[in-house]
Amino acid sequence: MEAYDEFIQRVQDIHRLGALQGHLGWDQEVLMPSKGAQSRGEMMAWLAGQRHQQLTDERMGSLLLALETHELDNDQRANVREMRRMYDQAVKLPKSFVENFAQARSEALVAWQEARAASDFEAFKPTLERLIALTREKIERLGVVTTPYDVLLDEYEVGMTVSDYDPLFAGMKERLVPLLQAITEAQQRTPEPSMPADLRFPVEAQKAFCKAVSTNMGFDFEAGRMDASTHPFSAGLWPGDTRFTTRFDEQDPFSCLYAVMHETGHALYEQGLDHHHRYTPRGGAVSLGVHESQSRFWENQIGRTAAFWKVALPWFTKAFPDAPTWDEASLNRLANRVEKGFIRVEADEVTYNLHVMIRYEIEKRLFNEGLEVDHIPAIWNSMFKEWFDIDVPEDRLGCLQDIHWSMGAFGYFPTYTLGNLYAAQLLEAMAESLGDVTELVASGNWEPLLSWLRPRIHERGSQVTPAQLIEEATGSPPSPEPFLRYVEEKYGALYGLS
Amino acid sequence: MEAYDEFIQRVQDIHRLGALQGHLGWDQEVLMPSKGAQSRGEMMAWLAGQRHQQLTDERMGSLLLALETHELDNDQRANVREMRRMYDQAVKLPKSFVENFAQARSEALVAWQEARAASDFEAFKPTLERLIALTREKIERLGVVTTPYDVLLDEYEVGMTVSDYDPLFAGMKERLVPLLQAITEAQQRTPEPSMPADLRFPVEAQKAFCKAVSTNMGFDFEAGRMDASTHPFSAGLWPGDTRFTTRFDEQDPFSCLYAVMHETGHALYEQGLDHHHRYTPRGGAVSLGVHESQSRFWENQIGRTAAFWKVALPWFTKAFPDAPTWDEASLNRLANRVEKGFIRVEADEVTYNLHVMIRYEIEKRLFNEGLEVDHIPAIWNSMFKEWFDIDVPEDRLGCLQDIHWSMGAFGYFPTYTLGNLYAAQLLEAMAESLGDVTELVASGNWEPLLSWLRPRIHERGSQVTPAQLIEEATGSPPSPEPFLRYVEEKYGALYGLS
Repeated sequence: MEAYDEFIQRVQDIHRLGALQGHLGWDQEVLMPSKGAQSRGEMMAWLAGQRHQQLTDERMGSLLLALETHELDNDQRANVREMRRMYDQAVKLPKSFVENFAQARSEALVAWQEARAASDFEAFKPTLERLIALTREKIERLGVVTTPYDVLLDEYEVGMTVSDYDPLFAGMKERLVPLLQAITEAQQRTPEPSMPADLRFPVEAQKAFCKAVSTNMGFDFEAGRMDASTHPFSAGLWPGDTRFTTRFDEQDPFSCLYAVMHETGHALYEQGLDHHHRYTPRGGAVSLGVHESQSRFWENQIGRTAAFWKVALPWFTKAFPDAPTWDEASLNRLANRVEKGFIRVEADEVTYNLHVMIRYEIEKRLFNEGLEVDHIPAIWNSMFKEWFDIDVPEDRLGCLQDIHWSMGAFGYFPTYTLGNLYAAQLLEAMAESLGDVTELVASGNWEPLLSWLRPRIHERGSQVTPAQLIEEATGSPPSPEPFLRYVEEKYGALYGLS
Repeated sequence: MEAYDEFIQRVQDIHRLGALQGHLGWDQEVLMPSKGAQSRGEMMAWLAGQRHQQLTDERMGSLLLALETHELDNDQRANVREMRRMYDQAVKLPKSFVENFAQARSEALVAWQEARAASDFEAFKPTLERLIALTREKIERLGVVTTPYDVLLDEYEVGMTVSDYDPLFAGMKERLVPLLQAITEAQQRTPEPSMPADLRFPVEAQKAFCKAVSTNMGFDFEAGRMDASTHPFSAGLWPGDTRFTTRFDEQDPFSCLYAVMHETGHALYEQGLDHHHRYTPRGGAVSLGVHESQSRFWENQIGRTAAFWKVALPWFTKAFPDAPTWDEASLNRLANRVEKGFIRVEADEVTYNLHVMIRYEIEKRLFNEGLEVDHIPAIWNSMFKEWFDIDVPEDRLGCLQDIHWSMGAFGYFPTYTLGNLYAAQLLEAMAESLGDVTELVASGNWEPLLSWLRPRIHERGSQVTPAQLIEEATGSPPSPEPFLRYVEEKYGALYGLS
């Protein structure tokens, strides 16, 4: 197997360059002094260039061709399959195009930040138009098989197309919009409890509390770190060193807690990968959707429950002795407020997917129906009005809120919804294996939960496609049904909807 | 100049890999979780391998050959000269030898740590013998021109040989040993002042105090960071991002302060390099000796003076309100205690170079006279007895104290002494340009000091050899005389020797 050995060495070199990008990216968000920005950008671009060069090396092409007719085991086949995808994509996009796109993105990021601050969509329009034109060019270069938007969707979640997403979102709209309506009516009858306005939760105490939760979830702090950054994120880095970040709001400990549970979910996936296959596709996480399922599972299915609060209550009371004497039910109630908010990243479980759907519908029309950028705000606002029954007062709170489009990341949003659906499917399947999950969570010993996920999700890496992985782990193909059942039951009970 | 353009692009790639090693090295000492060690070692080895491969690429050899007959400007010539040195060295050492050496070093590090902890030289002996054998092999492979030890000395400070170092150390021994003797007698007449044993200096207050000092020295905290690590160090990294570390001892604020002044001295050099030449030899620091001159200059020539304490006293009082009401003279006295200690890294200005000299003498005999490892402890202890007039009670406090030999770094120690000598030369030259430096320091505006160093040392990078640089900056070739004058005057006054 000389060809495979040479191939895998090249694959590892490419992934090591990617891991270095990940490390510098982590440092950039957490530690980098402000004047380091220019050199950092230059170094990141250099690493990207080295990576592209090694990926598109002719030798990689001929090794792939040779190996595709070899006898290979499952893991080897997965590596060849994934590298073929990466290689084809990379060789189809000429260096000049990639550089143009990168340049447009850096400019767009600045333009978007200014436009959002001023809530001025017109100011962002020309930049967005350029990015969309470049993305349309990218689609053409990569080659359309089904619909143009599918090319983008596939980039972020292999194998997913409009014909997969459409029925999924339609079903959700049908049931989430009435659920939201019913909750709103219930809220008018009985006002929501809320956090006392003058209460303060010191940062050091939040840190201790959240570390206790993360540790109980199974995060190994000898093989990772928790730090602070403006936007929480998780960086897999490499074996023995996985890092996540959180943020601290002294008036709201839930902001930090659920960021930590979310990011720990991502980080447990990374810590649980099969390091024997490190620096190869086989050894890496399979997709954004599956990654998000891990974060959402711990954040919502576990973290936003009374069973969780039964366990966390003594830690909470110890960390915040000045807080009112809440019991697990009131903490759980506070952690599960449903709100018709404008902002996706602050959304609860009921509204979150509706937020995603607006973006999905607009992206679909942009790339499959030639929608013009001009019309984005009106469409956004009318969909928001239809589903949330409130008016978007300014684009800052509407179509200018997300960073993704300014990064040229079209087709990314729907993976958030996949994460929510997969998490609910995993919870149902876990209950079939382990019995009453609520009881397990309430027992405080969460090890069986992690041990269930390890061989079914984490250790498998990219052995199979995301949809196959979910089907093999849960016994059913991806479906919105478990999520809808979960959310209807949970919020039905919380808001007495019956 | 197509050949030069191609050459410099390759040079920058090689240096970028080195800069990444630097970044990971910083992270390793400051942040890395313990279980990340194995992956980190692997990643560092991979980067070293990539760097070696690019450096020894045949194309680099032919470009160097071509460029050595081209018309070049001074900066270009410096890059070709330095890359020729690196290239010749790299191609003379086969990959298998380099890997063997790296392997022996990792094993030696562990063996040394255990041997030092147990103060057991016999346990370290076989490892040290192997490293010395490998180093002798390295010398042969690189090729002896003058003496074998010169090959090693040149690696750490280009152009320096035994015939340069010998007279320099002989002169120092002649004057430092009697000075130490006179100080010891003075100490017997008047006991040294010391720190009250129960006084505590909180870490946060030390941080604030030291940052104030570092800022006043001119360190730009928007283009760098100060963190904590077991052994203080400085990492140039890249333009706009230079980092140094310190340590905190709650019983002794001087430990942190002088570590910060020392490392800030190194870091100012890095911040002051000409970034137009980034990722090339021309744009990098010229040598270890010159680097050390920058750290020692600020730590000793500036930091350990009454003029410094005049400026720092209000910061000190503000940071440590519980300290006795010391004046600048008593703080200066506390900061300048001379002690016959066993440990080099804790040594004062009078004894430091004697510590270095012991190591230099032993290394010289090892490589030029075939000294056997067996005899190291006896020689060490007898030299120590001769110069310090005290007996080394155990090898932990003698020949096992330093990490350098376990890292195969033979020939490194003398650069510390060069740093001390250059710093004293720079102080004299600076006084000729700027007038009374003591007055300048006492004024609190240290900007003229840094501005004097910038064009003469920092911005010049590796334009010329270290000795040339010092000669052009100070008007005289490297010499021990200014240092000896400085130390005799300073400690003569402090201990009333006259």
